[in-house]
Amino acid sequence: MEDTGTYLQQMRAAVPLVHNITNYVAMNMMANVLLAAGASPAMVHAREEVAEFAGLAQALSVNIGTPDPVWAEAMEMAAQVMVDRGRPWVLDPVGVGATQFRQQLCARLLTLRPTVIRGNASEILALAGSGGQGRGVDAADPVKAAEAAARDLAQRTGAVVAVSGPVDYVTDASQAFRLSNGCALMPRVTAMGCALNGVIAAFVVDQPPLPATVAALAFYGLAGERAAQGATGPGGFQSAFLDALYTLTPDDLTAGAKVSHA
Amino acid sequence: MEDTGTYLQQMRAAVPLVHNITNYVAMNMMANVLLAAGASPAMVHAREEVAEFAGLAQALSVNIGTPDPVWAEAMEMAAQVMVDRGRPWVLDPVGVGATQFRQQLCARLLTLRPTVIRGNASEILALAGSGGQGRGVDAADPVKAAEAAARDLAQRTGAVVAVSGPVDYVTDASQAFRLSNGCALMPRVTAMGCALNGVIAAFVVDQPPLPATVAALAFYGLAGERAAQGATGPGGFQSAFLDALYTLTPDDLTAGAKVSHA
Amino acid sequence: MEDTGTYLQQMRAAVPLVHNITNYVAMNMMANVLLAAGASPAMVHAREEVAEFAGLAQALSVNIGTPDPVWAEAMEMAAQVMVDRGRPWVLDPVGVGATQFRQQLCARLLTLRPTVIRGNASEILALAGSGGQGRGVDAADPVKAAEAAARDLAQRTGAVVAVSGPVDYVTDASQAFRLSNGCALMPRVTAMGCALNGVIAAFVVDQPPLPATVAALAFYGLAGERAAQGATGPGGFQSAFLDALYTLTPDDLTAGAKVSHA
Repeated sequence: MEDTGTYLQQMRAAVPLVHNITNYVAMNMMANVLLAAGASPAMVHAREEVAEFAGLAQALSVNIGTPDPVWAEAMEMAAQVMVDRGRPWVLDPVGVGATQFRQQLCARLLTLRPTVIRGNASEILALAGSGGQGRGVDAADPVKAAEAAARDLAQRTGAVVAVSGPVDYVTDASQAFRLSNGCALMPRVTAMGCALNGVIAAFVVDQPPLPATVAALAFYGLAGERAAQGATGPGGFQSAFLDALYTLTPDDLTAGAKVSHA
Repeated sequence: MEDTGTYLQQMRAAVPLVHNITNYVAMNMMANVLLAAGASPAMVHAREEVAEFAGLAQALSVNIGTPDPVWAEAMEMAAQVMVDRGRPWVLDPVGVGATQFRQQLCARLLTLRPTVIRGNASEILALAGSGGQGRGVDAADPVKAAEAAARDLAQRTGAVVAVSGPVDYVTDASQAFRLSNGCALMPRVTAMGCALNGVIAAFVVDQPPLPATVAALAFYGLAGERAAQGATGPGGFQSAFLDALYTLTPDDLTAGAKVSHA
Repeated sequence: MEDTGTYLQQMRAAVPLVHNITNYVAMNMMANVLLAAGASPAMVHAREEVAEFAGLAQALSVNIGTPDPVWAEAMEMAAQVMVDRGRPWVLDPVGVGATQFRQQLCARLLTLRPTVIRGNASEILALAGSGGQGRGVDAADPVKAAEAAARDLAQRTGAVVAVSGPVDYVTDASQAFRLSNGCALMPRVTAMGCALNGVIAAFVVDQPPLPATVAALAFYGLAGERAAQGATGPGGFQSAFLDALYTLTPDDLTAGAKVSHA
């Protein structure tokens, strides 16, 4: 991974239209993150139009943070469109370990073979059927504890699987990377993980999913590092984070990415 | 248009209650924009209360950004209340060209004769039945290309029609204005257009809709110019924009409005 | 109330999982406020999982800002879980005086005996059946005018009742406090009241509800005072407010709380 910045450059040149079916808490932040990074976000969920809209998009992100049966159906309809057209889609299994409803929804979504799955350690453990100590929507397991589950899940589903934490872990079952960009204020702002999945969706358009996902995570974490400089709390940090997504250059990313083979 | 600031002064003195039926992405930003500008926003959508609530409001804004059939019905119920009481309502046809569902919904809403319609060039073209190259919810046509469509739409519906872009165009079919306030960061913050429609709704209460709409657009664009001073990206810009809406005076607006007859 | 800071210290040590069923406008701000303050927020509403999730949470906040019949049912299901398990839940009767639907919903929710009810003066008057001049979701009555209604409501329901305004009033029918922390910009940012109810829910976990509610209000108002220093408008204020929630210490709170017996 020496060309991390190239993925940012290509994403910005393409300005991909990313269709997001996400939770109510994250929608605004996710749209702002995608606009700041250089993509074109849209949120569309009604059964009456979701498949038609998905057909216009270069990528889809699905997030189960505030699901209900109607939205769940929309997620499956849109994901099916992406599968049929050979376009990427990304799954964020928010709080999947918390309820039976989320587990069953994710089981159905996994059959539609997401291109990338990203979650915290507890979510990846729960999704892989390996337990997990999640508490609500926050992680209660270290990333290390979810690495084997991530590899299993990647093997079983064909997805690139990313585990977020102080040091991220990304694998496609045959290769793996660790990333140490980021900062301690990121978990203190809501929807940071959710919005990251939109960025991953934008990066993997027309790119090999493993390195493009690694590049997206490095970009996001590096923006977090920049934003943390001078921030006294999560309010100023959030504002500076959007600015950093907007101003970071491909060269900055190549120079600042902290990626190693795992 | 020499008295632009007067419209701001009158809006702030009235503190109009603006009922918004808008998309999930925009709700928070729209409420903050209206509070900062000096109005009183409320978001209400359930069939069980939407007409009763509309009866309390001085103006209504309807935005189809994340529609579904239940919300669509609420939009029509609330708009009917405004029509029956002779109060203004404003339509934002977000992404109308993208799906059949949005086109059909807008066709029904147009029969309820909105006071003002504001969208980007692609949306106004699509709404007027003149094509339009919209991509998702973002414009892909220049404002100039939508001017004839805007006049046609104004003629046909009786609405004031505003086309947003680097230079805005506003017409009631017999007169037209161009406005060049604004800044390049505005399209990098989500819901800026959506929130503007709430501000228009606040400005047109008990005012002639054409000059009041022009004044609202000038106010909004001028706040954008102020906020851009010193902003390094969309995060700091959004925060400064809310501050500028709050601090701009009627005299500032009269002095800074860049409005000309078209 | 000499140990106000202790309640903040205990809340942060517990990092309580607070389940919120709240309105669409407030969700993002409410999650950010709870994260900044030191709690763990989650928003869950589907009938298919809401009771299961409530069983995992230490506290629940219910807000009727953008209700519909499906969400109303979820509110009642989740509140019932808290009642059954002896855990606290907090009610925010947003705009209850505006529509029959809200009045009927609140009447049902009151039978589930909320631990704390907090609203503005118009909302508390309407909830107590004592009139109230609310306009949309904003207060149009002074706090003083709602004090007797607050005591009646506390007597009748067993709840701690808090009336927000320039000087807050909090009572459990036998005792009462007035709080004068806060600043004039707070009503210019949307969802500030809504988010406060989440903070109250976090504070009352395993604590006596009256002093814990007072401490939560003092903490919130003090953060507002800090944020107002140097803020030129509601945008910068909101950002600084989240930073203040994050950086305020228990000692700061004990020193800065402006609480007196009423």
